Amino acid sequence: MTDLPEDLPERARADAPDRRPGGRTARVRAQVLDAVRAELGEHGYEGLTMEGVAARAGVHRTTVYRRWQDVGGLLADVLDAAGEDDWRPPDTGSLRGDLTALNDEIQESLVVRPSIPQALMAASFRSTQAADAQQRLWEDRYARCEILVGRAVERGELPPHTDARRLLIAATAPLYHQLVLLRTAPDPQLPGQAATAATLAATVGAFARPASGEEPDTL
Amino acid sequence: MTDLPEDLPERARADAPDRRPGGRTARVRAQVLDAVRAELGEHGYEGLTMEGVAARAGVHRTTVYRRWQDVGGLLADVLDAAGEDDWRPPDTGSLRGDLTALNDEIQESLVVRPSIPQALMAASFRSTQAADAQQRLWEDRYARCEILVGRAVERGELPPHTDARRLLIAATAPLYHQLVLLRTAPDPQLPGQAATAATLAATVGAFARPASGEEPDTL
Repeated sequence: MTDLPEDLPERARADAPDRRPGGRTARVRAQVLDAVRAELGEHGYEGLTMEGVAARAGVHRTTVYRRWQDVGGLLADVLDAAGEDDWRPPDTGSLRGDLTALNDEIQESLVVRPSIPQALMAASFRSTQAADAQQRLWEDRYARCEILVGRAVERGELPPHTDARRLLIAATAPLYHQLVLLRTAPDPQLPGQAATAATLAATVGAFARPASGEEPDTL
Repeated sequence: MTDLPEDLPERARADAPDRRPGGRTARVRAQVLDAVRAELGEHGYEGLTMEGVAARAGVHRTTVYRRWQDVGGLLADVLDAAGEDDWRPPDTGSLRGDLTALNDEIQESLVVRPSIPQALMAASFRSTQAADAQQRLWEDRYARCEILVGRAVERGELPPHTDARRLLIAATAPLYHQLVLLRTAPDPQLPGQAATAATLAATVGAFARPASGEEPDTL
């Protein structure tokens, strides 16, 4: 990094039209982030270098240094970019169906090889910037999923004061636990089973918000 | 590692009485594993070196190389040693009580700073040996917890064909998900809430083993 230029031209940044979607800035970003994902998938965090990413992206490395500073900056931008899509949770007509479809998506993303989500989670133990960005992405994804619980309440499937976040965590956590931490072999039944268990618990009020700070007396 | 002796004396290994619990071999192992945990707690995986561990343990580094080979070997032995205790799951008289007490233990181990379990999980993304040993430890811990579900079935709290492992994963996964992967602030209500939700789901048959491979028809 000793040859990183001290005084970088600020033209690219000041050049506003260049930053529009589809402009050169956006194109360079897409190339670089594609390269980060590819390098991460092939070599993991260990193999991720600014030089390797620049070479793979076909972008000058001073551009990569200027815009992303270091590997942590690259990882954080990959995670932030993942949150910029228009992803919406499944809408199948039932809570159990929605949660099963959601879990199927999650399982698929974690068992495909290479799994970029797995690689990013592993990287988040190495880089504070990646950890912060990973946290933003989780927050965004769970927030987008809350509508799925709202719809179930509207359909009368769930008690009105169901805590959407707790229900979503209960439904999805077993997949991450088994596939990321416990590293068990993928079980095609797991998405449906975890969805069913969380749905049953929610139906009988397990995620009801306690009235005025009281303990739930559901048991 | 260039100065690692090629021909090591085999006396320590051959000296059977030396390996008895409390003998010199056991003492050296305890000192070294204590040092690994301390170094891991202070510096994480990055700061873990054979030399640092040997110095901290007050053990000659050739001994450490001979017995553990590398950092992965040290981590694996710390994890294997964690499984050699006589830990048993809580026995409070009710399933909900047992799972809450279990989750309290888990949360406590994950939020204390430094958290050795957290550091070991992070390290398991870096070392295959650590990942394998971590998997053995999870397996051992969940296997030991199955008795807790057996007792609940005997007390008539649960349907007889409850899948103990799935119930235990459902009860504990939200804690690991929130505290290890999502990195949310510790919530003192989480252990009880996750235990209650899993208990409710189990009570209504969410973890019942399907008869002869059929899908559960609980919903």
